[in-house]
Amino acid sequence: MNRPIGVMDSGVGGLTVAKEIMRQLPDESIVYFGDLDRCPYGSRSMEEVRRFTLQVADHLVSRGIKMLVVACNTATAAALHILEKRYDIPVIGVINPGARSAIQSSSNQDVIVLATEGTVASGAYPKAIHQISHRFKIQSTACPKFVPLVEELRYKDKVVVRIVLHQTLKHLADTRADTVILGCTHYPLLADEIKDYFYGRKKVIDSGYETAREVSAMLTMLKGHASPQSNPEHLMIVNGETGRFEYILKDWMPFIEYRLEQVELKEE
Amino acid sequence: MNRPIGVMDSGVGGLTVAKEIMRQLPDESIVYFGDLDRCPYGSRSMEEVRRFTLQVADHLVSRGIKMLVVACNTATAAALHILEKRYDIPVIGVINPGARSAIQSSSNQDVIVLATEGTVASGAYPKAIHQISHRFKIQSTACPKFVPLVEELRYKDKVVVRIVLHQTLKHLADTRADTVILGCTHYPLLADEIKDYFYGRKKVIDSGYETAREVSAMLTMLKGHASPQSNPEHLMIVNGETGRFEYILKDWMPFIEYRLEQVELKEE
Repeated sequence: MNRPIGVMDSGVGGLTVAKEIMRQLPDESIVYFGDLDRCPYGSRSMEEVRRFTLQVADHLVSRGIKMLVVACNTATAAALHILEKRYDIPVIGVINPGARSAIQSSSNQDVIVLATEGTVASGAYPKAIHQISHRFKIQSTACPKFVPLVEELRYKDKVVVRIVLHQTLKHLADTRADTVILGCTHYPLLADEIKDYFYGRKKVIDSGYETAREVSAMLTMLKGHASPQSNPEHLMIVNGETGRFEYILKDWMPFIEYRLEQVELKEE
Repeated sequence: MNRPIGVMDSGVGGLTVAKEIMRQLPDESIVYFGDLDRCPYGSRSMEEVRRFTLQVADHLVSRGIKMLVVACNTATAAALHILEKRYDIPVIGVINPGARSAIQSSSNQDVIVLATEGTVASGAYPKAIHQISHRFKIQSTACPKFVPLVEELRYKDKVVVRIVLHQTLKHLADTRADTVILGCTHYPLLADEIKDYFYGRKKVIDSGYETAREVSAMLTMLKGHASPQSNPEHLMIVNGETGRFEYILKDWMPFIEYRLEQVELKEE
């Protein structure tokens, strides 16, 4: 089935998920929607995030996608259960795949979740993990300084990154947890430094990397893979200004070919 | 949903998959079926493997399972497509999860498949990988000496294991492949030695470990997880002699509590 996979995010963070889908499923076409005009979602009320998410999701579904990937932890926490009921196509968020991978990885059932304040407050990761295995110990830490670091491309300044990591993670240095979930799609760009911060002793789970894997599993299950002969076409839809979006896109995914479309999505 | 998950194999190999399901999904009850009377399937014709597999699967479905896991590569290659159509419950084999994990893991799209002669001859792994990503290079090697090594519990004799590994894998020592799929449910018991044989330079994928992960994904998708309060009960059904089965079960999974039932399943 050669219809595209829809991937949505409030901004650029979900591009790390889209990139991983392109790597693991190179025959699939992607339609990405970045709601840059209203980004970030993290500081908004759940009700507002839910309204924006539904509007973006409706827009993507109207483009004929075969599956919707909610590549934003905040939007997943706020609206996944509604989206699942709203459409005939499968909907997949980033939280369950990250939770499941931590369960697979952890030997001592003791994990750390790093996420935005909104995602931590929602309790979505502990809930997802405990639904599968109620024996897990989970410590969640909000990391409000991580997203600006990545969005402003300062994540390449290793000195700044180390200072911010120390400020945010120092209370976790002595924990027994053997697994760390990156519960925000921006954090994979800091993954190497986070691994180093814990002396390589904790396994670091990239929810986006794991989500791509579950997208693949769902396509196999539903017999929905694109045919191997197909030449995938990627479309990037931006609500609002495209400048910063393209700048970051070219920085993160320099080799990807895509078509860019600007839309104006407002609340009625 | 507290109905059990059915796991089937020709013999004891599938216990490595059952063990991993119990670890990753500790609230789920398992009904395992080992067709020891007709084991191994690997040397039989596809047609015969298909008949036996259907008979065992029908038996498990009659026990009220909510999902069927075909924890045998030969049976998966021979009959998965038939089983998927035959029942209302979801059916999952070991080949797709292993293939998908190799795609996720490999950086250079060059992988090795180690499996029984039957599975290698079926071409099931290359087919599964190429369905998702047609750019992969895949080398398959039949390892007929591995299963006896494990079944006779000689896998603990490191000297014997190293000799057999060298005989079987020496032509692969210089390949560029960065990932090795263990395409038989017996091989995880040799995983550490196989990793060492390749100097720890190739990632080794355990199909059973990955299958448990996909069972979990499917349960989440279908909202079919057992409730966290449940006390899982495991049932082991053996067709034929139970002696060797229990001996190996106790050796591999010493801490598991189970009920054992002997049946006589013959062809009509």
